[in-house]
Amino acid sequence: MEANYEQLFAAARRAGAALGTTDPERLGRAVRTAAQRLREHTPQLLAANARDLEAMAADSPLRDRLLLTAERIDAIAADMESVAALPSPQGGTIDAWERPNGMTIRKVRVPFGVVGMVCEARPNVTADIFSLCMKTGNACVLKGGSDARHSNETIAAQLHEALRTEGLDEAAFTLLPSEHEAVAALLGAVGLVDVVIPRGGAGLIRFVREHARIPVIETGAGIVHTYFDLAGDLGKGRAVVCNAKTRRVSVCNALDCLIVHRGRLGDLAALCDPLAAHRVEIFADEEAFAALEGRYPACLLRHAAEEHFGTEFLDYRMALRTVGSLDEALAHIARYSSRHSEAIVTEDPAAAQRFTQCVDAACVYVNVSTAFTDGGQFGFGAEVGISTQKLHARGPMGLPELTTYKYVVCGDGQIRQP
Amino acid sequence: MEANYEQLFAAARRAGAALGTTDPERLGRAVRTAAQRLREHTPQLLAANARDLEAMAADSPLRDRLLLTAERIDAIAADMESVAALPSPQGGTIDAWERPNGMTIRKVRVPFGVVGMVCEARPNVTADIFSLCMKTGNACVLKGGSDARHSNETIAAQLHEALRTEGLDEAAFTLLPSEHEAVAALLGAVGLVDVVIPRGGAGLIRFVREHARIPVIETGAGIVHTYFDLAGDLGKGRAVVCNAKTRRVSVCNALDCLIVHRGRLGDLAALCDPLAAHRVEIFADEEAFAALEGRYPACLLRHAAEEHFGTEFLDYRMALRTVGSLDEALAHIARYSSRHSEAIVTEDPAAAQRFTQCVDAACVYVNVSTAFTDGGQFGFGAEVGISTQKLHARGPMGLPELTTYKYVVCGDGQIRQP
Repeated sequence: MEANYEQLFAAARRAGAALGTTDPERLGRAVRTAAQRLREHTPQLLAANARDLEAMAADSPLRDRLLLTAERIDAIAADMESVAALPSPQGGTIDAWERPNGMTIRKVRVPFGVVGMVCEARPNVTADIFSLCMKTGNACVLKGGSDARHSNETIAAQLHEALRTEGLDEAAFTLLPSEHEAVAALLGAVGLVDVVIPRGGAGLIRFVREHARIPVIETGAGIVHTYFDLAGDLGKGRAVVCNAKTRRVSVCNALDCLIVHRGRLGDLAALCDPLAAHRVEIFADEEAFAALEGRYPACLLRHAAEEHFGTEFLDYRMALRTVGSLDEALAHIARYSSRHSEAIVTEDPAAAQRFTQCVDAACVYVNVSTAFTDGGQFGFGAEVGISTQKLHARGPMGLPELTTYKYVVCGDGQIRQP
Repeated sequence: MEANYEQLFAAARRAGAALGTTDPERLGRAVRTAAQRLREHTPQLLAANARDLEAMAADSPLRDRLLLTAERIDAIAADMESVAALPSPQGGTIDAWERPNGMTIRKVRVPFGVVGMVCEARPNVTADIFSLCMKTGNACVLKGGSDARHSNETIAAQLHEALRTEGLDEAAFTLLPSEHEAVAALLGAVGLVDVVIPRGGAGLIRFVREHARIPVIETGAGIVHTYFDLAGDLGKGRAVVCNAKTRRVSVCNALDCLIVHRGRLGDLAALCDPLAAHRVEIFADEEAFAALEGRYPACLLRHAAEEHFGTEFLDYRMALRTVGSLDEALAHIARYSSRHSEAIVTEDPAAAQRFTQCVDAACVYVNVSTAFTDGGQFGFGAEVGISTQKLHARGPMGLPELTTYKYVVCGDGQIRQP
């Protein structure tokens, strides 16, 4: 590792150790101060964001992720304030017990120390991770997307200003240089960075998985299905499917593949009409294609190829698959899902129960849009990402997911017999 | 990945999915049956173990880890039975709440699916991991140490027999071939194996960290300190230090470095005499050397070099460092500790509190031997390893640490507004 990166990480480590013993009230105040500063500097943030947007292709599906507006900045600040208002998880005793030999064991919640983040073009994440790490007493080392460089630097300047105002070490929040070596250094920072969380597309996540030598929480890649069951309610299905696909196509909880029971092909047009109204391009298998043929312009209805299943579209596109049974739907999901968010639309309680029991995913929905896979929507105040792995955290991650614990064992000279 | 490994992992995956919906009572019965079979086949196990021991160098410090005796087999079976008797963590609701829009969120405990293990020469781990994975509804894929090959194969045969007796899929416990390609395949089994846990020395752990593309829980490497404070009680210190160093030198919670306050150098000889009686070779810094010079044979008292600090000895050897203050002790530990187990001997409550707050380790002890860092000693029934990372699990890992969770969200057609 280059010496200057090692120095950055070591400084973050020292800052993190100090945060871990700082009054939680002061950490919350730093977050509120930062939120206020972002609001007050909305014009500067919009100007920096405009520079980033200029450099991005006009038809890039990532533009929506990058875009800041006055409303979005206000929402970011509001999210920060709601995180600041949450109870601090720091220092709590998770469990305590006494052993027969008289020694006591306490399991105490503590911060990780240093949290690494690798992001693509989502400047709101910069503020989110700052507030979540501050509230949990963690230092943060962030490698932002180069697409969002100016936005991130402008946000980071305000965050640092807030840290200074509260007398905290600026190294508690480190924005790494916008160069590729920074990612390699971060992923190899064994003993200095406790966990790295990639937040971005499948390519970024794969890169981190291949190269990290420190613990990783994989997030974000969502290949999301909704299964319209034989006993599905058409009204609920229309609303849930359209919302899951079109609310915001660039996010990881957006619908990628609608699975329909063969017995409901007669309702398929009614189910899909709201999608067509949003000009969603549908890649349908043979049976579904036949059921919809002629109803939509040819540019909106295509024949599905194998490659369309198991694809995260992040766009106004969707695969459509016909199955003969719930089990066939479960098999399709087991094969293609990224274990992020999966939904069933059904009025049959047995089908709902089997679906929620058998589907291996972070969030399993019954008659609810997958768009709710989000820390804020779950009531966590904000989120640091959606974990798609099973280790440590799964699904939307909030404050407790950014902490670990240690055991404190007290006694009076106890020794262990063979 | 070679096709035959992919098939093994896929079979484990299917077995794991089936275990996840199997009656926990039946899983517990399989563990009890296996324990009974191990007891009944003690002669066969000892014979297989003797073959492994024959092939190992007579002076290898790993012999004690490899050695099985009738008593140890009985202890292994007893540990399995106590795990079988523990309540199953499967299927429990960890938390549940309703959102303002009327949808309900339940956080439900579920097995990982497939747990991978890479072990060195410790055949008892094979039985431990079987019982812990069974009780938590996980399939297990184990790469045992080639040193323990015959012991492991003999144990695995009995475990498979127990699975068959209970009508369970044998693929729920897979002992990988004793060849190096098996480790590479396991570490690359993205999407098939949910977590891999190395259990062995620093070299094994480093190898896994460098090569794994699936989530890892690092375990076992213990560079362990005990600090004898200015206010330390000599009687407690003598007992705790000697026990931590000599109870079993080959295990990860064994003491590696005694730190002594300069103000107690006059008591150092009394503190170290029990170690000398066990013929522990001490690598002392200048001050400590001067305090002990002439008291022990030259072969037991050496001058410390830098390399002796931060070394896991796994042998009758120990580093000895003199400090002028608690803070200096904390700095030494922060620099050299592997964050496994750290202890202070003191009668000063303020020193004890500062030590437990500032030391960043899985287990922090006050006036207790570090030999207690062990799942059984913590009351977990047995242990799957001692995590030295902060993600997911820290310190001794028992049943709950082998599970994850999913969110089940139920509603009535809820959609998310922008």
